[in-house]
Amino acid sequence: MFSILKKKPMDKLSEVLGKNKVNTSIVERKLYSYDATPIPVERSIPSAVVFPENQEDVQKLVEICYQEDIPIFPRGAGSGLTGGAVPTTEKGVVVSFEKMKKFSVDVDNATATVEPGVITHDFQQYVEKLGLFYPPDPSSFRYSTIGGNIAENAGGPRCLKYGVTREYVLGITAVIKEGKVLKTGNPVIKDVAGYDITKFFVGSEGTLGLITSATLKLIPKPRARATALVLFDRLEDVGKAVTRIMTSGVFPSALEFMDADAIRAVEDHKPVGLPKDVSALLLIELDGSPQSVKEDLDLVEGLLKQMGLRVKVAEDEASAEKLWMARKNLGPALANLKTGKINEDIVFPRIYLSEAIPKLRDVARKYDLLMVIFGHIGDGNLHVNLLYDKKNRDEEERAERAVDEIFHLALSYKGSITGEHGVGLTKRKFLKWQLGDVGVEVMRDIKSVFDPKNLFNPGKLFTED
Amino acid sequence: MFSILKKKPMDKLSEVLGKNKVNTSIVERKLYSYDATPIPVERSIPSAVVFPENQEDVQKLVEICYQEDIPIFPRGAGSGLTGGAVPTTEKGVVVSFEKMKKFSVDVDNATATVEPGVITHDFQQYVEKLGLFYPPDPSSFRYSTIGGNIAENAGGPRCLKYGVTREYVLGITAVIKEGKVLKTGNPVIKDVAGYDITKFFVGSEGTLGLITSATLKLIPKPRARATALVLFDRLEDVGKAVTRIMTSGVFPSALEFMDADAIRAVEDHKPVGLPKDVSALLLIELDGSPQSVKEDLDLVEGLLKQMGLRVKVAEDEASAEKLWMARKNLGPALANLKTGKINEDIVFPRIYLSEAIPKLRDVARKYDLLMVIFGHIGDGNLHVNLLYDKKNRDEEERAERAVDEIFHLALSYKGSITGEHGVGLTKRKFLKWQLGDVGVEVMRDIKSVFDPKNLFNPGKLFTED
Repeated sequence: MFSILKKKPMDKLSEVLGKNKVNTSIVERKLYSYDATPIPVERSIPSAVVFPENQEDVQKLVEICYQEDIPIFPRGAGSGLTGGAVPTTEKGVVVSFEKMKKFSVDVDNATATVEPGVITHDFQQYVEKLGLFYPPDPSSFRYSTIGGNIAENAGGPRCLKYGVTREYVLGITAVIKEGKVLKTGNPVIKDVAGYDITKFFVGSEGTLGLITSATLKLIPKPRARATALVLFDRLEDVGKAVTRIMTSGVFPSALEFMDADAIRAVEDHKPVGLPKDVSALLLIELDGSPQSVKEDLDLVEGLLKQMGLRVKVAEDEASAEKLWMARKNLGPALANLKTGKINEDIVFPRIYLSEAIPKLRDVARKYDLLMVIFGHIGDGNLHVNLLYDKKNRDEEERAERAVDEIFHLALSYKGSITGEHGVGLTKRKFLKWQLGDVGVEVMRDIKSVFDPKNLFNPGKLFTED
Repeated sequence: MFSILKKKPMDKLSEVLGKNKVNTSIVERKLYSYDATPIPVERSIPSAVVFPENQEDVQKLVEICYQEDIPIFPRGAGSGLTGGAVPTTEKGVVVSFEKMKKFSVDVDNATATVEPGVITHDFQQYVEKLGLFYPPDPSSFRYSTIGGNIAENAGGPRCLKYGVTREYVLGITAVIKEGKVLKTGNPVIKDVAGYDITKFFVGSEGTLGLITSATLKLIPKPRARATALVLFDRLEDVGKAVTRIMTSGVFPSALEFMDADAIRAVEDHKPVGLPKDVSALLLIELDGSPQSVKEDLDLVEGLLKQMGLRVKVAEDEASAEKLWMARKNLGPALANLKTGKINEDIVFPRIYLSEAIPKLRDVARKYDLLMVIFGHIGDGNLHVNLLYDKKNRDEEERAERAVDEIFHLALSYKGSITGEHGVGLTKRKFLKWQLGDVGVEVMRDIKSVFDPKNLFNPGKLFTED
């Protein structure tokens, strides 16, 4: 037999899908071996980058990959922070959904059908013009895709009131093992026919199959919004203020926290006029009907002033927008402080925040590191940033050791090692700490149901052992 | 060897758990072989009824059952309507959680830890006194348990705005195969460490393991509420009115529908003064801050009056409460019309309701049956009741044939065969219609991960083949 008779896998892919959908140029392959993860991860240059255009392409792709044992690395915009979109073996292909970006909205039913490559922000702008609202708002929303958001169960400030991405996914179509098509859910918000595979897929980080379409829930767009800024001289008052707000009968649509270093980073990067002499600040967003927003604002302002705190209300939409952009740009702003950054997104039950924040500061002191804390304090999700000089290997190592302690701290308070970013490659070794042996064992076994050959995003979530 | 050396399984259970926790009297066994399912199902008298008092009891119980191959039928209050709590084999034991009803609330964190036997209403009353809110409100809420609500992913009128039970479960502790303890989630609303096993357990109808504890999310209690009644002369206006309301920027906390026969049943059972000469009515509940409720009410009233509809606002809490109790008591009220009742809880995407309701009426006409429709129209979840005379076998058979058509109708509009009641025993044969072969195959395989011996609630959800 001549070996020429057996086609090479990438040639087979090209032949079946069409040459224009399978790119094997080294430039492209290198380009798609990265994502936005700020720390070094084990990356491989993939064999090809595949650009499916529809459900049939994805089916054919998975069929071939399952026949030929080719690992599949799905990719949205590559804006993930834990290596979720990074290929881990040269044998594999990256599947980019950038050509699958169609969507349709059913206004009367308040649902939408979207392909995975739709940019979240584009979709949000579109539905808001129709009086509808799709709340998930990760900081990457201007460029990240809904497919990626679903894979990572993306959150954001407004998830305090409105819930994370999972709450808005009513159904999916996915291609699983052997190219089988799995359809779950319906464009309805109530459906208890069998196990909820839909919600299970959300946050599965591309390890169960490839999502080719999703049905999303939309809600009425709030008619009014207001933003207030609360200034703190003492860090320990922050936790108390949060509790006071959250038990007052007012449900803020966002409640964001920045410490003194975070404020300084913003003001040094793109100043918006935040006071640099405070210990911390809270950004509060309220939404609802115009009257209720006024009423809620009065109530919140009153009780915070009673606590002796300074409250400033944004006078118009433009100044509110400015404050929120400052918050959303905090990630890039921090890059100015040092060359290296580890951005963890740990979670504490809200009640322990006042106790935990000083302990986080202790960790920074112990390892002699610059630590900047900001995040979604209403839901206890803190972004703890460790900043270091990339050229200083000793400092980098200290930062890595500090991360271990930070995770232990979150878990000792019944928190989580990740509230938004996922496990990916960077947090695999910590997953067992949080879930225990039984939890991880069950998850591995369920992965096998969808992917017995371990070809969907292998190396992610679980350690190899 | 003498067989006396090998203990009988029930004796072993008694010995390990304590005699007071394992009841083998025939009276008790018969009593616990029923649930509230209104149609005949294949029931068996179980070998025993077990009353665990804590997590350790449940662990020991499952260990023994896994050693001895004893099927386990978990039970909340037995208020389910699809046979979920009914034992299907004499070899099995019913596990009643009525002795596990402890709970604790963490006000500052807005979370609670509950045992499965806690009565939903008791818990709700308790947290509302603390300014917090646990929204899931199945009609059975006064007697059903949170464990049962989690197993069935219970819904109710307020789930339109607030979501179903699943949205409020942040973590569970469950005992799975071989008595292993699985802990999932945390008292935080954001957690993306691994697959979401928590939400997967919700709605799994007791087929994956026994939940011994759950962590629940609580939200701020709305400060005000209002109820309005909308009267319709023409059925076809109902769908239009629902769309107008749901695209107006107002998010009602409930939007319930009753047809003319449902209204008549209420007025003949426990009259609350509903007009008997209309074709249908909507009950609208609005909640939020006192000002916003007024404002939203004005807006909704205005747009409905523009459509030529009559709107009556409940003047005080007592009269609102009276209307809601009439709605909640509709089930029992219908029992007065005929001796037999099949109550289906199908779902249609809201947009198709105006089209689907006349088709449902066609089915009733075709089979010459009395059909009463009411339900959660805001989310498209209709309770379609077929009433028949139990002594009239022909009429009963016609009702059963009509159910098949009703399910086909729901599925032809991308709906669901069940919005709240679950699959249990009564809808097993229809599950494949909705989910397809791949969907059911994946679900069966996942069940095996948690329960390889198929001992947790066997015979439910899936058909035997």
